[in-house]
Order: sequence, then C-alpha cells, then structure tokens
Amino acid sequence: MEQLINYITSKISLSPEAKDYIYSISKKRIVEKGAVLICEGQKVNKIFFVTEGCLSSYCTDEVGREHTLQFAIKNWWISDYIAIYNNERSQLTVESLKKSQVIEFSTQGLEDLLIKFPEFEVFQRNNLERHLVSLQKRILNQLQLSASERYDVFVQQYPDIESFTPNYHIASYLGITQESLSRIRFDRGKK
Amino acid sequence: MEQLINYITSKISLSPEAKDYIYSISKKRIVEKGAVLICEGQKVNKIFFVTEGCLSSYCTDEVGREHTLQFAIKNWWISDYIAIYNNERSQLTVESLKKSQVIEFSTQGLEDLLIKFPEFEVFQRNNLERHLVSLQKRILNQLQLSASERYDVFVQQYPDIESFTPNYHIASYLGITQESLSRIRFDRGKK
Repeated sequence: MEQLINYITSKISLSPEAKDYIYSISKKRIVEKGAVLICEGQKVNKIFFVTEGCLSSYCTDEVGREHTLQFAIKNWWISDYIAIYNNERSQLTVESLKKSQVIEFSTQGLEDLLIKFPEFEVFQRNNLERHLVSLQKRILNQLQLSASERYDVFVQQYPDIESFTPNYHIASYLGITQESLSRIRFDRGKK
Repeated sequence: MEQLINYITSKISLSPEAKDYIYSISKKRIVEKGAVLICEGQKVNKIFFVTEGCLSSYCTDEVGREHTLQFAIKNWWISDYIAIYNNERSQLTVESLKKSQVIEFSTQGLEDLLIKFPEFEVFQRNNLERHLVSLQKRILNQLQLSASERYDVFVQQYPDIESFTPNYHIASYLGITQESLSRIRFDRGKK
C-alpha cells in the first residue's frame, strides 16, 4: 500500500483522512501467474493498481483467438473500462501474467472517494490523460509503423515483458501473427 | 455557444459565474472546409468543441502518407492531446473536413476553469472516460475485426461522413488502402 500512497503523494497532496479512506476501500492482493481477476461476461466492479508484476487485459473472438488490449506494469491501473463507463458486462479478461502484487479497489469505493475528497479529481484526471495519450500513441503506431517498428517501440516500453509473456499475447497486442513475431525476433538476433 | 452550455448543463449543474467564465475563455469560430486549426510542429494551446460539421486529426509519415487518428463530429472535442499532456510540439494536424462551427478554448483557459470551478472536474472526467472508451473500442476493433467489419462499425458511428470526407482519410482511419476501401464499398453496393 505504501507504494500506492507514495505514488499518489508524488502527484497530489493527501490529507490523513483521505489516506485513511483509501486504506478503507482497497486491499492488497498477491496474485499468482495465470490468476483471472476479471472474467469475460461478468459485471465489473473492481479496478486494480499494479505495484509489482504484470497483468494483461484481452478479449477473445468467436474462434477463440485472444486480442490483447493492455499490459499493466508497476504504477498502472487496469480493469475493463468499457464495461465500467458504459455499464455493460465485461468483454475483457484481466489476467496476471506472472506472480504480481496489486491494490484492488471497488469501483464504488473510488467513486465515493472522488465525492468525499474532490482533490482526487485532479489525480484521476491525470491518470485518464496519461491513459488517453498511451492509447492514442498506440493507434498512431498501429497506423503508421511497420510490424517490426511496432515491436521495437513495444520492447522499449516494456523492457522485460518478453521474459514472462507468452508469444501469442505479444503478437496479439502488436496485431501480428506469432510467425511474424518470430521472424522479427530472428531479425533482431533473438531466439 | 448555447449548444455547448446546453451540453454542459446536461451533464453537470452550472452556476451563472461558471457560465460567464466559459464565455470569457472561449470563442465561436466558423471554419471553412480545409481550414487547418492545428499544424504539425507547433506548440498546442487550443482545444476545439465541435458544434456543427466535422474536423479530423491526422499525422503525416516520412513518405507523406496521412494517418487519421480521430474524426470529431457534433459534441466532440478535438486537439492534439499527446502534445498537450506531454508538453510536446504537435505531431498532428487538425483540419476541418467541411464548413464547421467550433468553440475554441485556450488550454490555459480550460486549466484555469478547473481551478476556479472544481465542479468541472466531473465534466472533464466524463469527457476523458468517454474518449478513453472510444479509443479502446477502436483498438479492439482494429485487432479483432476484418477490414469490412471495421468499415461497417465506422459507417454506423459516422453515418453521413462519407458524403464529405476524402477516401484517403477514411481508409487511413481504418488502417487499409484506398483500393481495399473501394472493394468493400463495391461489395456493399456503394459506388
């Protein structure tokens, strides 16, 4: 929890009351590799802040192929935001790619936090802005970069993710086949 | 301006002081087809709310190809958010695709608005959430749908955009060639 509090106080000042409230609406969880935190088809009432490890969110199409929307490493938030903001059931699965540590919040708890402590709005806005920038950059990269250039950007952004992430997750994030990913890696001198 | 005020009051309650302040930091602009509101390479200090018409944002790659990030129709905001939030120069061009009416805000004005009238934080958060959902949906569609399925989603989302938007803008938004777009349209019985 201390990491989250430090993260928040690096962005906004935090009263002792607000700090206590954050403790009251969240809990630390250790999740094993492969643990599913949100299932496709469920009502989504949880948001996770990653303090260690890596989670991913993906959807599964009609023929069972997985398509990775997001990787969340340290200091990132993850959930199914489409489901939360549109009040729909989850299209996504959120899964832990390695043993990880997260702070779990209820969506209701976070909503109440914003009402009780409006100073959090600035923090939340900054999170959303950062997320928006990351999504826009990803779309622009998808549109204008070649597969191998996208791979290079990805490796720069997530330096050690390849050591614990199945190839199909990375390929599906990049929007390429596993064979293309293997070829690109071979060209980069990687096994 | 009345349309913007109505749009805001449909989301949050607005004091007369806040309303006056919005008037003081914004101006209505009629922009002709082809007008460039933000140029690649410039410092970005404007955000536009579309009340009529359609604007687009796109980047231009090394060989001069344009890649469309966003179309903004009525009640949408548009700017170069990557530049604003990362304090970088613009990578994007924002252009009017037809004669349009926009409300122009200075980014500084909007920042001051949030400080002076913190009730706007909720409005801004909802805008960001809506934008985030739209970007995530677009990425998921790009990953899991075929080009023709993406075209169908696009036409549903922007019903009359084809009547005034050059093919290369639509093709570049969908991440396909103009030839593919023509084939898909031909299959749909369109010219």
